[in-house]
Amino acid sequence: MVIPSHLEDLIASLRCLPGVGPKSAQRMAYHLLQRDRAGALRLSQSLSLAANNIRHCDKCNNFSENEVCDLCASPKRDASLLCVVEMPTDLLMVEQTQCYRGMYFVLMGRLSPLDSIGVKELHFERLLMRVQEQTREVILATNYTVEGDATAFYLAKLIHAQGVKVSRIARGLPVGGELEQVDSGTLAQAVLERREMIT
Amino acid sequence: MVIPSHLEDLIASLRCLPGVGPKSAQRMAYHLLQRDRAGALRLSQSLSLAANNIRHCDKCNNFSENEVCDLCASPKRDASLLCVVEMPTDLLMVEQTQCYRGMYFVLMGRLSPLDSIGVKELHFERLLMRVQEQTREVILATNYTVEGDATAFYLAKLIHAQGVKVSRIARGLPVGGELEQVDSGTLAQAVLERREMIT
Repeated sequence: MVIPSHLEDLIASLRCLPGVGPKSAQRMAYHLLQRDRAGALRLSQSLSLAANNIRHCDKCNNFSENEVCDLCASPKRDASLLCVVEMPTDLLMVEQTQCYRGMYFVLMGRLSPLDSIGVKELHFERLLMRVQEQTREVILATNYTVEGDATAFYLAKLIHAQGVKVSRIARGLPVGGELEQVDSGTLAQAVLERREMIT
Repeated sequence: MVIPSHLEDLIASLRCLPGVGPKSAQRMAYHLLQRDRAGALRLSQSLSLAANNIRHCDKCNNFSENEVCDLCASPKRDASLLCVVEMPTDLLMVEQTQCYRGMYFVLMGRLSPLDSIGVKELHFERLLMRVQEQTREVILATNYTVEGDATAFYLAKLIHAQGVKVSRIARGLPVGGELEQVDSGTLAQAVLERREMIT
């Protein structure tokens, strides 16, 4: 009665955003109506444009407006290398290094049984089909978290069974890192995974 | 290049929500596109409906879909009492007590020079016009924060100058409160503002 129905709907709809509870949703709705109606209308339009036009690239599974994204369609990339990352942001991070000119596959997540994200949700079958095409080496660049590591191990087995070379991005001290400051887990791995210097 | 433009727009637009920075905006956009497109479309519609249809009630300044909101239009309310609150939620809290049957005025904020919210932003002139109509008593129910208290003091002076009775909601121990658990500021005020029991 006291809350206009459109306002009530807006507060309810804002709850679909991750990390937004009833109090934040109310605060957001009041803020938009009180101070930023132009922003609300802009957001409304962006939401419908994005929800209706953004799909997953058929090749790399990244967000894209076309069937095949610009990166996958580029003839300049080395199609024999495939880098597997968890999220689109990870892809951007690798791209920023400018040291990799191969293709990507974006899992859009990692194996996480507690969040009921399993093999099916991550489209492993599409990744394996991709691997069979013309891939010489798969670089697993999932995070070095428990879930990311488990995902990498699981994928490594599957890909190795297909006779394709599998590698994992290196773990060790960061560039500019000092032994004194690094955590013991990282240091232990850096010792275990040491590289021969002069071969 | 790597981020589709509609996705980039969506991330930028989400920044208009209070407390949402670049990282949260990205997380929200990915979540909506990956797991809740229906929610995104619902939110899009709610935003445009609310932004286009919700206005401020001419009488109480609360959010409303009509010129005068249901509460102000109700003949059952006592028009000689006017309760001033900061936000629509405060109005709801007072309504929930079911102890008040007068009218309201919602400031939509409080005096806060640091956020550049002054007398003009809070529509004090509209409140004073409202007071002149047929008000017998104004109850100031702004928060007991520094800003809320300052707002109440400022308003009290203005309204008293018009020859209308002004009161402030009571401050003291909460119902069920024990002296041992209450903070010393509240207890000090409860002692200072003690009420005669048998008069």
